[in-house]
Amino acid sequence: MSFQNPVFIPGPTNMPEQIRKACDMPTIDHRSPTFGGILTPCLENVRKILKSVSAQVFIFPSTGTGGWETALTNTLSAGDKVLAARNGMFSHRWIDMCQRHGLDVHIVETPWGAGLPADRYAEILAADTGHEIKVVLATHNETATGVRSDIGAVRKALDDAGHPALLFVDGVSSIASMDFRFDEWGVDVAVTGSQKGFMLPPGLAILGFSDKAIDAAATAKLPRTFFDIADMTKGYAANAFPYTPPVGLMNGLKLASDMLLEEGLENVFARHHRIAEGVRAAVDAWGLELCAVSPDVYSDTVSAIRTPTGFNATDIVTHAANTYGVAFGVGLGEVAGKVFRIGHLGSLTDVMMLSGLATAEMCMADLGLDVTLGSGVAAAQEYYRSNPSVSALIAA
Amino acid sequence: MSFQNPVFIPGPTNMPEQIRKACDMPTIDHRSPTFGGILTPCLENVRKILKSVSAQVFIFPSTGTGGWETALTNTLSAGDKVLAARNGMFSHRWIDMCQRHGLDVHIVETPWGAGLPADRYAEILAADTGHEIKVVLATHNETATGVRSDIGAVRKALDDAGHPALLFVDGVSSIASMDFRFDEWGVDVAVTGSQKGFMLPPGLAILGFSDKAIDAAATAKLPRTFFDIADMTKGYAANAFPYTPPVGLMNGLKLASDMLLEEGLENVFARHHRIAEGVRAAVDAWGLELCAVSPDVYSDTVSAIRTPTGFNATDIVTHAANTYGVAFGVGLGEVAGKVFRIGHLGSLTDVMMLSGLATAEMCMADLGLDVTLGSGVAAAQEYYRSNPSVSALIAA
Amino acid sequence: MSFQNPVFIPGPTNMPEQIRKACDMPTIDHRSPTFGGILTPCLENVRKILKSVSAQVFIFPSTGTGGWETALTNTLSAGDKVLAARNGMFSHRWIDMCQRHGLDVHIVETPWGAGLPADRYAEILAADTGHEIKVVLATHNETATGVRSDIGAVRKALDDAGHPALLFVDGVSSIASMDFRFDEWGVDVAVTGSQKGFMLPPGLAILGFSDKAIDAAATAKLPRTFFDIADMTKGYAANAFPYTPPVGLMNGLKLASDMLLEEGLENVFARHHRIAEGVRAAVDAWGLELCAVSPDVYSDTVSAIRTPTGFNATDIVTHAANTYGVAFGVGLGEVAGKVFRIGHLGSLTDVMMLSGLATAEMCMADLGLDVTLGSGVAAAQEYYRSNPSVSALIAA
Amino acid sequence: MSFQNPVFIPGPTNMPEQIRKACDMPTIDHRSPTFGGILTPCLENVRKILKSVSAQVFIFPSTGTGGWETALTNTLSAGDKVLAARNGMFSHRWIDMCQRHGLDVHIVETPWGAGLPADRYAEILAADTGHEIKVVLATHNETATGVRSDIGAVRKALDDAGHPALLFVDGVSSIASMDFRFDEWGVDVAVTGSQKGFMLPPGLAILGFSDKAIDAAATAKLPRTFFDIADMTKGYAANAFPYTPPVGLMNGLKLASDMLLEEGLENVFARHHRIAEGVRAAVDAWGLELCAVSPDVYSDTVSAIRTPTGFNATDIVTHAANTYGVAFGVGLGEVAGKVFRIGHLGSLTDVMMLSGLATAEMCMADLGLDVTLGSGVAAAQEYYRSNPSVSALIAA
Repeated sequence: MSFQNPVFIPGPTNMPEQIRKACDMPTIDHRSPTFGGILTPCLENVRKILKSVSAQVFIFPSTGTGGWETALTNTLSAGDKVLAARNGMFSHRWIDMCQRHGLDVHIVETPWGAGLPADRYAEILAADTGHEIKVVLATHNETATGVRSDIGAVRKALDDAGHPALLFVDGVSSIASMDFRFDEWGVDVAVTGSQKGFMLPPGLAILGFSDKAIDAAATAKLPRTFFDIADMTKGYAANAFPYTPPVGLMNGLKLASDMLLEEGLENVFARHHRIAEGVRAAVDAWGLELCAVSPDVYSDTVSAIRTPTGFNATDIVTHAANTYGVAFGVGLGEVAGKVFRIGHLGSLTDVMMLSGLATAEMCMADLGLDVTLGSGVAAAQEYYRSNPSVSALIAA
Repeated sequence: MSFQNPVFIPGPTNMPEQIRKACDMPTIDHRSPTFGGILTPCLENVRKILKSVSAQVFIFPSTGTGGWETALTNTLSAGDKVLAARNGMFSHRWIDMCQRHGLDVHIVETPWGAGLPADRYAEILAADTGHEIKVVLATHNETATGVRSDIGAVRKALDDAGHPALLFVDGVSSIASMDFRFDEWGVDVAVTGSQKGFMLPPGLAILGFSDKAIDAAATAKLPRTFFDIADMTKGYAANAFPYTPPVGLMNGLKLASDMLLEEGLENVFARHHRIAEGVRAAVDAWGLELCAVSPDVYSDTVSAIRTPTGFNATDIVTHAANTYGVAFGVGLGEVAGKVFRIGHLGSLTDVMMLSGLATAEMCMADLGLDVTLGSGVAAAQEYYRSNPSVSALIAA
Repeated sequence: MSFQNPVFIPGPTNMPEQIRKACDMPTIDHRSPTFGGILTPCLENVRKILKSVSAQVFIFPSTGTGGWETALTNTLSAGDKVLAARNGMFSHRWIDMCQRHGLDVHIVETPWGAGLPADRYAEILAADTGHEIKVVLATHNETATGVRSDIGAVRKALDDAGHPALLFVDGVSSIASMDFRFDEWGVDVAVTGSQKGFMLPPGLAILGFSDKAIDAAATAKLPRTFFDIADMTKGYAANAFPYTPPVGLMNGLKLASDMLLEEGLENVFARHHRIAEGVRAAVDAWGLELCAVSPDVYSDTVSAIRTPTGFNATDIVTHAANTYGVAFGVGLGEVAGKVFRIGHLGSLTDVMMLSGLATAEMCMADLGLDVTLGSGVAAAQEYYRSNPSVSALIAA
Repeated sequence: MSFQNPVFIPGPTNMPEQIRKACDMPTIDHRSPTFGGILTPCLENVRKILKSVSAQVFIFPSTGTGGWETALTNTLSAGDKVLAARNGMFSHRWIDMCQRHGLDVHIVETPWGAGLPADRYAEILAADTGHEIKVVLATHNETATGVRSDIGAVRKALDDAGHPALLFVDGVSSIASMDFRFDEWGVDVAVTGSQKGFMLPPGLAILGFSDKAIDAAATAKLPRTFFDIADMTKGYAANAFPYTPPVGLMNGLKLASDMLLEEGLENVFARHHRIAEGVRAAVDAWGLELCAVSPDVYSDTVSAIRTPTGFNATDIVTHAANTYGVAFGVGLGEVAGKVFRIGHLGSLTDVMMLSGLATAEMCMADLGLDVTLGSGVAAAQEYYRSNPSVSALIAA
């Protein structure tokens, strides 16, 4: 088990030293006021990071998948209609969850690599004059394809149609690393996890609910206990959870969110964008293409890179792990074998990124791809030195 | 936030140094073989700790409550009948969960302080000739009252009635610290968490399923995705989870379970029994009584201690926290204000326990109870020195 | 290797969680400004803790013994005359070091258990009209006997004699836990280490030098390089050491000294005094006596406890380690076998101390001493509850 | 304070996760058998790493500089004659220490960048027919210039002259990372520290003494107490130190030396050589030259790289720190401003090294040097991929 090299998977990310230490906390009494001193700033900081003034924040000892389930089970009943586009593995899985919970999903099949089709949403919503659609699902950043979608456009589709459906956004690989505007976009439920932009170990589902989404709980009949937001609300009011809270992880979240806010969200986003641009410069220098079809959907947290036809992109990931001790991400689902993924979110510097790019180059050369050693690195170096860093993780 | 004194709550427990370090792990690729090297021994070790040769073990990033939900949703359908006794807050909560998931619970109200009424179970099961009862719930150790029940007797009730119902056991505060016999007792689902006998931070639901319980999943209609054991089984087969696994916690579980098995389960149980006997000697010396009604139900992991009528037992807990920086457990539900609880499980020595007893004495004296300083300590000292420790945590 | 119980040795002490984390620091460039950000507050904080406005502080990667050598080699030449009293193992060792470095030590033999004989010093200094004595050594707190001496009285002896000798004080087990007044007492060199009042791992010698002591370096001919304060001064001026500094330990010292100053030195001293008074109440209840001959010399950081004649006090220490996993200190030198020692300095609460006292009682009972179980604990409990804590370690 | 990027200074090195955790140890009683369980394997492992069967190993809470002083003060008397070559800052400092301790040093001035002049040693030793020279000093690896010298040749010079002088070798930046043969080379004292090949924090001086060197202590008159090997020997015999040992660091040394021996020393050396060769390929691709004058003296742990005349090499170091958060080493003494240094020892992978090379390239480009971005990286990549790693740090 080698911990020497950084990881370049799209989460869990590399973790800052201080955040690891904040998570590694001795046992305290989770029913004591001490826990309130952790919980309250977590809730407040997450709300700020969501760019919301009123969202109610919920934190569960779970993962992003548990966050999806929280969103659905607290707001919907079996048979309810949901609108969703499938443009990657993670939007696919959320759709699958809906179906397994007895929801009726109107699926808009979308090319993997494209963003969410707001125009198609608009048509469908406009046509749904009976307002049968209760919820619209939107994956902000498709981790499988490295595609960022325009959530504002989805909101506009709803508004233009005068449609009252709730808007649920999967921000697992965007929140806390790319711009996310809960209030401005009229998001009703936002879902993320601890192990991406928050740079924590996995183990937390983190959500924001609008008042409208909370109101929906009154009539939602899907069974729920572990993920029940009403129990959680009652718990929070007493500085507690309805069950044993993950104190150490939340202590880490308190610090991580403090760090992000102290750095400034726009700086955090710019930092991720800068690292990502270097990666994209390297991809271009390699003569390769991103899975993401156009610059407007390029993700600043993960790049899925298409390899030439006939080449198994997964070999790069396997070879990097076996030969260089470096972790990249494989392609999933439709793009399995066609892309490999470089995660560039969380605790990562330009310098660390260059070692990832250098490794990818060695792997591609080792596997017979026509890539000039140093070419991608040089392109990224040129970008990084010409675009100096404007901020860094606070005390990272 | 003081970390100097040990905690004496009935979980999360004090954590051994090495286990904390095992949990505090840098990010690895959870899709790499490295993760398999953590997962596989976890599953095998937990099975051994359950004293089972064939149980399938499942580990979720969740808590004991999530474990309960896993048990129910993978085996039952709305309207199914469940038999359960309510003899404390945690049995109450599992019953409540059943009801919220649309199950029809036959509740046997039982005095808080008494064990599960196996005789009543026997009568009800015998009367259920149509075998409508699908599941029998049994809380092995009621953390709220410090009561350990006889699961073997519940099994006998089932067998005597020739009843095919599944037997689900909440072993959250017993497994890995008190004797638990999955195979011998014919348990179908056993539920525990990471933060009790396993001495880890909270964040894992840990379960064992019998083949019969797994078979029940085929027809169980309660919706489930996050807690779906079929997805988990498929994931494990590929050394993976269906979502991001809590790698660090599992690395800790690997070590914790190695340590417990190396010490020897019977030694682990004897170690807990010895600490508990000292506590009970102190309670006796104080002239107080346990909530547990008789020695056969005394718990070796937590003691709920009744205070005199008219005295608010919760004051002891508050005073201990505020004045001495020590955490005890409050009474919950029916016994709120009537008992305070001393947790004595996990990483704890006789020496540590004596400081807890000494603190309780100071608190009781401070609050005007008629307790002689040093009396309980002396009784426990006498017990501990006359009954030497036969084992200790391995490398703790 | 069990880390569950606290230690009750007179140093190294139990370490606060945060201080351990501050020491456990990744590698930085020790020639970078970052290191200056650690070094400067260390020097300033230590000076404040010495209660000095002008002492020059030096920190070496060494121990208290290295601190003694620093004091001698930077100020003296072979053949120089030194006045010292021997009243315990540590004053003995410093005298031995003097002799091995060719110094001519005028030794005042003093009963082990008594404080430094300021009156004898006065006589000798008055008689030394030629001012041949260059340095007076004074052990502020004899760790071997639990005796605190009156350094102010030694200063008075010097002043009354109008004697220009330098005053060197061993404050290894007093500084940062008992009152120490560098300026008021006219101390010329104060010596301590990291592993006592500063609650750090061993590895640092920490010294304060008066201007007069620094001036003595100009003519001091004892060879020195590693411990040369001139090299160190030059290094500090460039935010550096003349060799590789122990960065992590110093990062810990920065935090520890911040914590002590934030708590307030008088509060720190009162906290140690309170814990010590409880121990002394217990000793009294056991019918035993301290090695320290009278209350005016009782140490607030360590108690050496005499056991009855014919009993080997070291057996208590061995038995406590073997049977209960608890560390006390043995008697050293003249009092070997006659005393055992309880350290009560650093990161320690009343609650932790009670477990140490309870353990000592069990050991004494196990070994046949006539001690009533619970008696010492009760006396300490009574003291602690009647004398509430006025402060605690900051965020400990 | 950023801990994200690795450091590329020639020590302290990057530290493996496990070693940091081994050092971060709770307080134990250093007079207990537990400490013996740490001390004994440290001594044995270090001896093996020195490739000696009989060397006595000594470990002091100090640094390499303290190690030099230990070597001198335990074997020599004021006025004794010492032979030494000055070919860099560290050989210079050892010579300076000799002089400050009153030794008479015959200095062979040697170009900085050249190895030790064994031929000149041979002449001088042959001429010293009276055997006035008591000790020959040899810096195995000059950290300031990146020059490795031939210690076997120095031994041959002694043997050819039939000269009985002791051979003292500074192996601070070679031992545990480059081949070192205590017995074969007839080394009498070998000196190193914790923070280089052992990958630990600074804080330990580590030495091996031959029997002949130990015998010299009988007549050596230089004063010593803290660094006295006789006291240390007596302490070790009782599993102790003569003062408080640095327990945590030694626990780390136990693990580090276990890891190195498990990997195999030749593998450790090959691992360092491979990383170094990549660096040298990059330097060549940049059109720059090493300070080391010829391949036979190239160091596998540090490269000092000459920059073009008129360029201040220190600017690279400052710029790397300020702009990219990366630490390189500056030139020292005679080569200050003429070289910058890249450390490549300890816990370092090819992948990490590439990020260092990429950073150096960006810095050089930023500062106007004529270096093609990616050129050095490509050369190193080519070397690394063509020369696969044969071993890695065990569990690093």
